[in-house]
Amino acid sequence: MDLASFIGFSVCLILVLGGMSSGPNGVAGALSFWDVPSVLITGGGTLGVLLLGVPLERFLKFPTVFRKVFFGSSPDMVGLVQTMVSFAEKARREGLLALEEDASQLDDEFLRKSIQLVVDGTDPELVKAILDTEIGLLEDRHGQNKKLLDTMAEMAPAFGMLGTLVGLVQMLQNLNDPSSLGPGMAVAIITSFYGSFIANVIALPMGKKLAARTGQEVLCRELMVEGVLSIQAGENPRIVEEKLKVFLPPFQRKRLEEEKSASKGGE
Amino acid sequence: MDLASFIGFSVCLILVLGGMSSGPNGVAGALSFWDVPSVLITGGGTLGVLLLGVPLERFLKFPTVFRKVFFGSSPDMVGLVQTMVSFAEKARREGLLALEEDASQLDDEFLRKSIQLVVDGTDPELVKAILDTEIGLLEDRHGQNKKLLDTMAEMAPAFGMLGTLVGLVQMLQNLNDPSSLGPGMAVAIITSFYGSFIANVIALPMGKKLAARTGQEVLCRELMVEGVLSIQAGENPRIVEEKLKVFLPPFQRKRLEEEKSASKGGE
Amino acid sequence: MDLASFIGFSVCLILVLGGMSSGPNGVAGALSFWDVPSVLITGGGTLGVLLLGVPLERFLKFPTVFRKVFFGSSPDMVGLVQTMVSFAEKARREGLLALEEDASQLDDEFLRKSIQLVVDGTDPELVKAILDTEIGLLEDRHGQNKKLLDTMAEMAPAFGMLGTLVGLVQMLQNLNDPSSLGPGMAVAIITSFYGSFIANVIALPMGKKLAARTGQEVLCRELMVEGVLSIQAGENPRIVEEKLKVFLPPFQRKRLEEEKSASKGGE
Amino acid sequence: MDLASFIGFSVCLILVLGGMSSGPNGVAGALSFWDVPSVLITGGGTLGVLLLGVPLERFLKFPTVFRKVFFGSSPDMVGLVQTMVSFAEKARREGLLALEEDASQLDDEFLRKSIQLVVDGTDPELVKAILDTEIGLLEDRHGQNKKLLDTMAEMAPAFGMLGTLVGLVQMLQNLNDPSSLGPGMAVAIITSFYGSFIANVIALPMGKKLAARTGQEVLCRELMVEGVLSIQAGENPRIVEEKLKVFLPPFQRKRLEEEKSASKGGE
Amino acid sequence: MDLASFIGFSVCLILVLGGMSSGPNGVAGALSFWDVPSVLITGGGTLGVLLLGVPLERFLKFPTVFRKVFFGSSPDMVGLVQTMVSFAEKARREGLLALEEDASQLDDEFLRKSIQLVVDGTDPELVKAILDTEIGLLEDRHGQNKKLLDTMAEMAPAFGMLGTLVGLVQMLQNLNDPSSLGPGMAVAIITSFYGSFIANVIALPMGKKLAARTGQEVLCRELMVEGVLSIQAGENPRIVEEKLKVFLPPFQRKRLEEEKSASKGGE
Repeated sequence: MDLASFIGFSVCLILVLGGMSSGPNGVAGALSFWDVPSVLITGGGTLGVLLLGVPLERFLKFPTVFRKVFFGSSPDMVGLVQTMVSFAEKARREGLLALEEDASQLDDEFLRKSIQLVVDGTDPELVKAILDTEIGLLEDRHGQNKKLLDTMAEMAPAFGMLGTLVGLVQMLQNLNDPSSLGPGMAVAIITSFYGSFIANVIALPMGKKLAARTGQEVLCRELMVEGVLSIQAGENPRIVEEKLKVFLPPFQRKRLEEEKSASKGGE
Repeated sequence: MDLASFIGFSVCLILVLGGMSSGPNGVAGALSFWDVPSVLITGGGTLGVLLLGVPLERFLKFPTVFRKVFFGSSPDMVGLVQTMVSFAEKARREGLLALEEDASQLDDEFLRKSIQLVVDGTDPELVKAILDTEIGLLEDRHGQNKKLLDTMAEMAPAFGMLGTLVGLVQMLQNLNDPSSLGPGMAVAIITSFYGSFIANVIALPMGKKLAARTGQEVLCRELMVEGVLSIQAGENPRIVEEKLKVFLPPFQRKRLEEEKSASKGGE
Repeated sequence: MDLASFIGFSVCLILVLGGMSSGPNGVAGALSFWDVPSVLITGGGTLGVLLLGVPLERFLKFPTVFRKVFFGSSPDMVGLVQTMVSFAEKARREGLLALEEDASQLDDEFLRKSIQLVVDGTDPELVKAILDTEIGLLEDRHGQNKKLLDTMAEMAPAFGMLGTLVGLVQMLQNLNDPSSLGPGMAVAIITSFYGSFIANVIALPMGKKLAARTGQEVLCRELMVEGVLSIQAGENPRIVEEKLKVFLPPFQRKRLEEEKSASKGGE
Repeated sequence: MDLASFIGFSVCLILVLGGMSSGPNGVAGALSFWDVPSVLITGGGTLGVLLLGVPLERFLKFPTVFRKVFFGSSPDMVGLVQTMVSFAEKARREGLLALEEDASQLDDEFLRKSIQLVVDGTDPELVKAILDTEIGLLEDRHGQNKKLLDTMAEMAPAFGMLGTLVGLVQMLQNLNDPSSLGPGMAVAIITSFYGSFIANVIALPMGKKLAARTGQEVLCRELMVEGVLSIQAGENPRIVEEKLKVFLPPFQRKRLEEEKSASKGGE
Repeated sequence: MDLASFIGFSVCLILVLGGMSSGPNGVAGALSFWDVPSVLITGGGTLGVLLLGVPLERFLKFPTVFRKVFFGSSPDMVGLVQTMVSFAEKARREGLLALEEDASQLDDEFLRKSIQLVVDGTDPELVKAILDTEIGLLEDRHGQNKKLLDTMAEMAPAFGMLGTLVGLVQMLQNLNDPSSLGPGMAVAIITSFYGSFIANVIALPMGKKLAARTGQEVLCRELMVEGVLSIQAGENPRIVEEKLKVFLPPFQRKRLEEEKSASKGGE
């Protein structure tokens, strides 16, 4: 679970609702921000235009997208390096075939497949080509989920603006009754508020979180490819570790060192 | 037929019309959004500027563009993988020449041409070069259709703004009659509304749908090239399948497995 | 002559003028859009800033730019493919030297030079390098003409805005005479209108047309390079045609086929 | 310490505070710019949306980011070239192994690691590959710190706008009391002011400073890689210096020459 | 001296001042555009934020930047081609060493260094590598000067807006005195005017001019590298000329031909 996403989203929601209630009318003022036609034209219009602009199978990814934002988690890069190094050691000691059993117990499908390819004795060039294509296409697919949110972030304010223009025209055509000017304009502006809210509190930040997750996942898989190819080439486990450590940010490198010396101390 | 495009476009249209009728004047209020000079300056101006800014042969692609958005369909990638694998098997069993007849019955011109090149014994390098150039130029041509819609999405709000500025100047020059201020400004704003509508409900989302279609088509052809080159290299059909499966998103891979086991079960 | 450019530009002009005259003051209202200080600050300022921001020799390209937009024409790609194929046939029958005379009669300087290089027996690598550099630099030079218009499209609204800010400040400083508020603001807004007009009706669309022309020209020359190199390599004319056909959009391929069968029928 | 950052930030702060106090109410007017609900919705909302949109470990980099902006310093490129050249001389005279001790006394971890790799007799190709990956990933990590500030610069005005829209709606719904119109609108606008301040005085310029620091650091490490590889290849120290001098801007080249002749003069 | 820069800048200045004086108050109206707190918050704030956002050594490049814009000049490409061709002839006749003396008399440091490298018998690969790195880093350094102006063009309107928001809040808080509304708002808007002026009349166009100068300089050096490498390879002077002519725009090619035939006629 991504606690930061929950907290961040709640903070935004509470602060915006608090801002709505901080007017002269208090909480009742916050209620007046709810206007069904405005919700329909902004929210419904945004969904409609997404249906029009995005292939159906991608539009149906919405639940997946939200799940990833709120329930995704950072991959354990340090553990991964340790696993790869232990595989490298085993392969050196017992040969590549010895990895078959370990591979079959891996959770990560990509790593399982990578090692299976190596165990099967596939040509290294081909292994690299297949895995790189797979990473590229994964990046592409995830990028399209982000694009779904980006399109949403683009269309919501546009529909908010459209609604505001409609509201302004209606208000201006009935200017003979000056007392209705204020509320009329307030309603006109509300769609802009909805559009801005959908874009800036929902679609944009979630798209960013998604992109960050994808980046981590891709980095993780590049580490796997690097490791698997080194194992296949029969490189020294120490060199493998050196090569893979490069993928870790400094603080994780330190953690790796600590865990290594801890496990050695425990020996 | 792309049902999602129809539904999405209708939803937007109904919601915007509903918003127009939700004012104090009801449906009559919606009618007052129709203003011939405003339609002319926004819609006509947008078309005029497209004629000026876009080569004529591309401008004439408008009907094609709309047809693709509303009647295009996603290519059947799973079926395509199956076809390629069956070709690989046949080529292994009976030789490349045996594919000539099958190729001539294919609907897709690109795949037909690809296989014909292989059957003709063209050099693999040359096959790849010709097909890659063809994909690149197809991407280019489709990209220009998208650019047509993007230019439209860029110019429509600009002309809406131009119309609004004209309307504002006219209104401000006749400020001595305050009762005309409201309606005058309403008319001025209507062109902005038209411009925003053309851009955000028509041009932008349709451009996105088109780009997504092009992406699918290109991916599909890259799969074909990969497959045809593997067949020409006489690779094992199992390897061919493994290589091509990479192009499928996870849920289609599952479908492919299911269909395979189903067809085996039926054997 | 590029009829579409003429028609498109005229349509925009007529519609905008029509919009100006559709106000309560009729044609007289359109005349009131002409304001000399506003024209000076927007138009003059835009030219001044272009002089400041763009090297002089590029600034002086303005007439060339407009001539290209209104009098440029699409290159005849189909005819070009036919010419190249006929050259390939001649070179095969009579040797490369036989092309010297044909080359000297070509209108296009680039093609003439390309063939001359081949006839001179220049090394293929060198031929490709020289021609690619030439295309790259041509693309660069044309790109700078487009940049001239893009800078214009960027600066004109900025100067319009600058004029409007000046006008607003003047108007607000003389607010004690409320009757002058309307006309004062109208004048202030007129510079924004001019800026928007220059950008959206002149500079932006013409820049796009120019870019499209450049794209066609570059594609055309890439076709020439591909063809000349194939001829130099002594490739089969049928292969040459196959290779070059790839550069044509589908409808032109069809035309090429028709003309070919027509000429065969006529034989 | 980066004095320019301190001075620049103080200047901005003082001028903005001065501007606030230059109104008719003097310093008391400046105090009226402090509005708790507005601070909460803009500042808090921006932080909330960053928590939602940015992985937690990157969000926690905020202190690091500010420390770098205010306390970072430009690397001493001239000294670095001198160090590398002296290493090249020593390696030529006494062999690569002689560098081991010098390396262990270096402050910079990257340079230490680079020389250790060379001393260990690692293959040059592998040295280059490992160091390039390390530079690439460092660039990536620093780029993400910049992205944190860029996201902040993007979201703060959005939340300012959101707050202004909320304020406008509240004000317009209570239009019957005209005397409250001014202050109501003033409060509504204050959130836009906060958002603009956070973006343009804090997030944007600090992000730029960070990017410049990263650029210098990367250039510095590219110089190290170039130098280390030249040393490993046993190149002439004069050539090494020539190669590395290229990385220096002209004024630093001059300084290098001066220091060289000074040290020679001192001999 | 770049006359176009002087004229362009003067034209803008005169037209804007003229616009200021064209109001009902005449020249006195222009004086009212001068407001010290506004100048401080916009101009000072922009400088402050540049100090914060840009490394100090780059910030101090301001005088260099302005000198380049107003006193830079286009390089003489035609003369350069002639020089290179004459070097090629001399090198062919008398050997590479004969160039040493000519090189030492060259004004351009880059060309001098290039030829010195060739005369020293440096390996062609290394010559190319060193010179390419040098060009790349020069492009980088000049690009950062442009970035300085671009940052200025980005921050000035932001500070103008900030000032306007401050002014609006002050004005709205004192709305009980309606007679001050106009002047208050005029002052508020003036900072926006300053920001727009700094960005659009100074920073943006000068940045563009700088980029154009850099482009010319880079092209010039690429020509030198191409020429020096051809000379080193001992290529025929006629081929060298052919290769270098490609770098010239058509009108300069014509001039080159004319000067050549003129000098021949004079022989």
